[in-house]
Amino acid sequence: MPVQQARARSRQQKILRAAADVISRRGYRDAAVEEIAREAETSKGGVYFHFPGKEAILLALLDHTAGLLRGKVEAAIAAEADPVAKADAALRTLLRILAKHRTLARVFAVEAAGAGPRFNARVSAIQDEFIALIREQLDDAVAAGAIAPMDTTVVAQAWMGALDAVLQRYVTAGSRGAGRRSLDEIHDTLRRTLLRSIGAEPAPRPTDNGDRQESGDRHDH
Amino acid sequence: MPVQQARARSRQQKILRAAADVISRRGYRDAAVEEIAREAETSKGGVYFHFPGKEAILLALLDHTAGLLRGKVEAAIAAEADPVAKADAALRTLLRILAKHRTLARVFAVEAAGAGPRFNARVSAIQDEFIALIREQLDDAVAAGAIAPMDTTVVAQAWMGALDAVLQRYVTAGSRGAGRRSLDEIHDTLRRTLLRSIGAEPAPRPTDNGDRQESGDRHDH
Repeated sequence: MPVQQARARSRQQKILRAAADVISRRGYRDAAVEEIAREAETSKGGVYFHFPGKEAILLALLDHTAGLLRGKVEAAIAAEADPVAKADAALRTLLRILAKHRTLARVFAVEAAGAGPRFNARVSAIQDEFIALIREQLDDAVAAGAIAPMDTTVVAQAWMGALDAVLQRYVTAGSRGAGRRSLDEIHDTLRRTLLRSIGAEPAPRPTDNGDRQESGDRHDH
Repeated sequence: MPVQQARARSRQQKILRAAADVISRRGYRDAAVEEIAREAETSKGGVYFHFPGKEAILLALLDHTAGLLRGKVEAAIAAEADPVAKADAALRTLLRILAKHRTLARVFAVEAAGAGPRFNARVSAIQDEFIALIREQLDDAVAAGAIAPMDTTVVAQAWMGALDAVLQRYVTAGSRGAGRRSLDEIHDTLRRTLLRSIGAEPAPRPTDNGDRQESGDRHDH
């Protein structure tokens, strides 16, 4: 039984990866379940065995990605002691994962519009979870006296919105020559802007090495 | 001819007002052109004479509202000399109009999800216009030496995202008792957060009178 479960999960993962590829190539509307099946080396029936339809695949892909992101960000926060360093680590982790999964990020940023109200509602719910996570960090920073008291709920909403707006434009910008910023440049501006917004001075920037590494497991001190 | 044109424009306005009412009552999907016609005291044919369909009505409503908002915000910016006061005035005007047209704001915030890709693309384009407007102000503030040089494009995107996220949650929150903030409280947090984010100290808060007045024509000094 556990072997079969593991196999089923691995098939689902394979279908989700294939779906991410096909959707980012074709767009959500034109992504056919048949092509997803071919890319995942299974049949259309094999896909429908795991997911009732295309929307379910997209929602599963979104949940899977959000869960992964949340886990990595929480680990990065837990690894730091100083409240401002926690915020910094969370942002760095978020951008690192985005750089690694840029195609997937573009799927969600671009395809959200056409995917309908259920997808949008799920994106909203995920953002609310991240807002709660940001608010907790800000509350801790206030409690520790690291920043002045403020309406941390509204500030957390503002941070989430700021991140979302900048990153959406980053992933959809393509490589339009001169106007194009590197993720490092965006990181630099975002951390300065967000930390200043709560009255915290950004610490000196961590080593580029720390910023550019592929794994999210190491932390800069 | 001009009389007829004026009459046509006034009919269109009446249909748009009716559409805003019906959509906010029923939701975009369930808002029937027939009910919009009844509310606008015309026939279904009368509505179709001005707009090819429901999506066209929503897009016209969005464009009309964005144009109005942009005009008022630009006037508020022009009326101030100091760069930081300009940003402050723009935010105050935005929130003042939102308070006055909360139903309409809710239509766009809630209904965006179900209205399809064309609506979403238009919302994006309008946000990009406001980002350009914010960036101009930030560039002027940098040129005047009021704030340090920064990547004003990314900061303007962050501001737009922050405003959008906070205001969307404000207009969709309903009146859920204790958790509910007044627009004045949100204004206070936003102005502090955004101004601090560019390294500008918020000036003392303008009089409440100035904040709560209905007309956008007077300015606080």
